Amino acid sequence: MNSFILKGDICYSTNKTTLKTHKDAYAVCVDGVCEGVFDSIAKEYEHLPLYDYSNKLIIPGLSDLHTHAPQYSFRGLNMDSELLSWLNNNAFYEEAKYSDMQYADKAYSIFCDGLKNSVTTRVCIFSTIHTDVTKLLMQKLEESGLVSYVGKVNMDRNSPKNLCEESGEKSASDTEKWIADTKNKFKNTYPIITPRFIPSCSDGLLKNLGEIAHKYDIPVQSHLSENKDEIRWVKELCPESSSYGDAYDYFGLFGKGTKTVMAHCVHCSDEEVELIKKNKVFVAHCPASNTNLSSGIAPIKKYTEKNLRVGLGTDMGGGEKDSLFCAIVEAIKVSKLYYRLIDETVKPLTFNEVFYLATKGGGEFFGAVGSFEKGFEFDAVVIDDSVLPHPQSLTIKKRLERSVYLSADTTGIKAKFVRGNKII
Amino acid sequence: MNSFILKGDICYSTNKTTLKTHKDAYAVCVDGVCEGVFDSIAKEYEHLPLYDYSNKLIIPGLSDLHTHAPQYSFRGLNMDSELLSWLNNNAFYEEAKYSDMQYADKAYSIFCDGLKNSVTTRVCIFSTIHTDVTKLLMQKLEESGLVSYVGKVNMDRNSPKNLCEESGEKSASDTEKWIADTKNKFKNTYPIITPRFIPSCSDGLLKNLGEIAHKYDIPVQSHLSENKDEIRWVKELCPESSSYGDAYDYFGLFGKGTKTVMAHCVHCSDEEVELIKKNKVFVAHCPASNTNLSSGIAPIKKYTEKNLRVGLGTDMGGGEKDSLFCAIVEAIKVSKLYYRLIDETVKPLTFNEVFYLATKGGGEFFGAVGSFEKGFEFDAVVIDDSVLPHPQSLTIKKRLERSVYLSADTTGIKAKFVRGNKII
Repeated sequence: MNSFILKGDICYSTNKTTLKTHKDAYAVCVDGVCEGVFDSIAKEYEHLPLYDYSNKLIIPGLSDLHTHAPQYSFRGLNMDSELLSWLNNNAFYEEAKYSDMQYADKAYSIFCDGLKNSVTTRVCIFSTIHTDVTKLLMQKLEESGLVSYVGKVNMDRNSPKNLCEESGEKSASDTEKWIADTKNKFKNTYPIITPRFIPSCSDGLLKNLGEIAHKYDIPVQSHLSENKDEIRWVKELCPESSSYGDAYDYFGLFGKGTKTVMAHCVHCSDEEVELIKKNKVFVAHCPASNTNLSSGIAPIKKYTEKNLRVGLGTDMGGGEKDSLFCAIVEAIKVSKLYYRLIDETVKPLTFNEVFYLATKGGGEFFGAVGSFEKGFEFDAVVIDDSVLPHPQSLTIKKRLERSVYLSADTTGIKAKFVRGNKII
Repeated sequence: MNSFILKGDICYSTNKTTLKTHKDAYAVCVDGVCEGVFDSIAKEYEHLPLYDYSNKLIIPGLSDLHTHAPQYSFRGLNMDSELLSWLNNNAFYEEAKYSDMQYADKAYSIFCDGLKNSVTTRVCIFSTIHTDVTKLLMQKLEESGLVSYVGKVNMDRNSPKNLCEESGEKSASDTEKWIADTKNKFKNTYPIITPRFIPSCSDGLLKNLGEIAHKYDIPVQSHLSENKDEIRWVKELCPESSSYGDAYDYFGLFGKGTKTVMAHCVHCSDEEVELIKKNKVFVAHCPASNTNLSSGIAPIKKYTEKNLRVGLGTDMGGGEKDSLFCAIVEAIKVSKLYYRLIDETVKPLTFNEVFYLATKGGGEFFGAVGSFEKGFEFDAVVIDDSVLPHPQSLTIKKRLERSVYLSADTTGIKAKFVRGNKII
């Protein structure tokens, strides 16, 4: 079932700057794992079934390192405020609705349909504080065929009443129970520890969550240094911590053996960047969200030059689109404005660099994911770029660049494979 | 033929900040002109045919004040350079191909199809230096049903050999002949004087073009203060001019009785802004292009506060998308980065403000265009926003905002009317 060959025009990143392209080539999948890309089919693979996508683009699946499932419904709405007031007036208001299982069922079906039909194959997701509803989301994601980490969110302070858990202890014990229930329940869907952010979690809760993460070997996701008011607030709440990241680190929620992804990292101090690097924390770069909420521009080029681990995030509903093609374009665009408006010594990101982040860079959070090199889990998306007519023939690289810039994913996705399973 | 009623959920701007919405209302068109929007159908209109678009959004047509038809084919490609090198390596390279009528025929068909199926109803277009090919483009645009100003481009210096006209005199006389041939040839397609920009036009040519514009009462379009290197170059070329805009003004190509639209205006001096205002020049704000070419961010909020005339432009291929919905979102986004990174006293543009620019603001270049107020030419686009499922019902304003942010125009355009003609 999970062994086959795809034929078509294949492109994938091998390192931060190199995009390999192969015309009329064969990507071979055996038991859900990539054997490589070849110009002809070797004897040993001749018996495998072949999907013929000639003249279509075949790319690795893309990884979305940060998004909020309950916010999918209000993406593209009420974009006129900054983080802290936006959370109170929009995000929290919407998330409170998810105490209603019926509403959640409807909304999460729409979310999972959207994601399934996008170029994303792997994703890190925030749900809400509601445990049962989070399980429902995990069930739906499992049915979609995508691979995901899903977090029941923890919030026990500075939150509206209807989104504030009754105590840190209860929040932690609910989380532990939820982990026990879901850790081995699904093939492709896993729990992830998800303190919303420092301001909404008491010290006691953070301490408990750090312990749970280590005890069960569960990864961690949260938000880091997104907005200047937020950072000032964290400084007030954690006066002993030398940085926002250091506060997570104090509670064992910042890498160091526990796989961790932190969204945003727009305003990290130099020391914080060093800690991210030392602890091998992943940075989820969410350019659309950082612009929509007037947060600023994360200096991603600096991070990649320091060899930090970076991937892209759509961060719905701070970001408006679930498309990682759009996230690639946004990342390139804001890097140009960073260069022009903030620091001309920091060169803009190139297409190749950001395509790498969206595939192999972010894919690393999930293991050997995001490339067609031998040994990578087989995630692939087939794009029919003839939906974007052109007066003459183009190279594969140009066809890919154009497909990404012109959102060929809106109407051009012809097939999608995750871990060797065909899900579209 | 041009008298009918549209029924649906109608929204339109009446001024810079006010968006009117009407549920299950009727927009009445008599002889191609809007009679207004009503909650019920008055006796005098009862005999008119009715298009029932219940539950769909009906908005005014959008105006694109700046784009390049020959660059449509390379939009989304080779985005890694700044204006002057980008022109030499990409734009000029592509435009030279339009000496080949067969290539132009193919490429312009694709361009016109794209535009016809977008939310744009009015558009100001640069063609190339090639007169016959420009006529071909005008013919195709006329067939599309859109209303357009189309410019044969003038270039007689600092241009590659295959795009440099043989002399300023020849360029001007070709232009005059082309105007005589096309001025009254079409119903919806008009010539516009189009010096590429100061660096590519000699003083003699600019002088002639200014005279032709006045003699035939033809409007003018060009580029202004897009990039700092470009501005320095203009300063060298026109040492007596106090600004880039002043150089155009000297040759009679900057408003003052000749309707003029200038693209970009990213780095205008205060004096230049005053001249734009005094001469009633329109500003075509092209945010995607200004970001892609690392030009910077135009301070549009400052311009609208000074009551300058501003509309939006897609500026393909500096901009990558032909969608004015995308241009609206980009304009809001970059205004937030301007606020955050350049000047926190300049508040970001709101959705209502930018929707106004895309409809009534830019529409003004074409007359009474871009609203459903009484007396406006009847341009309308019908959007089926059910292509974007939502778990609960939303207000019309929110449905519009969401449709724009989430690009409902990609698959949701159900009908389009221009001057009362149904073209989709």
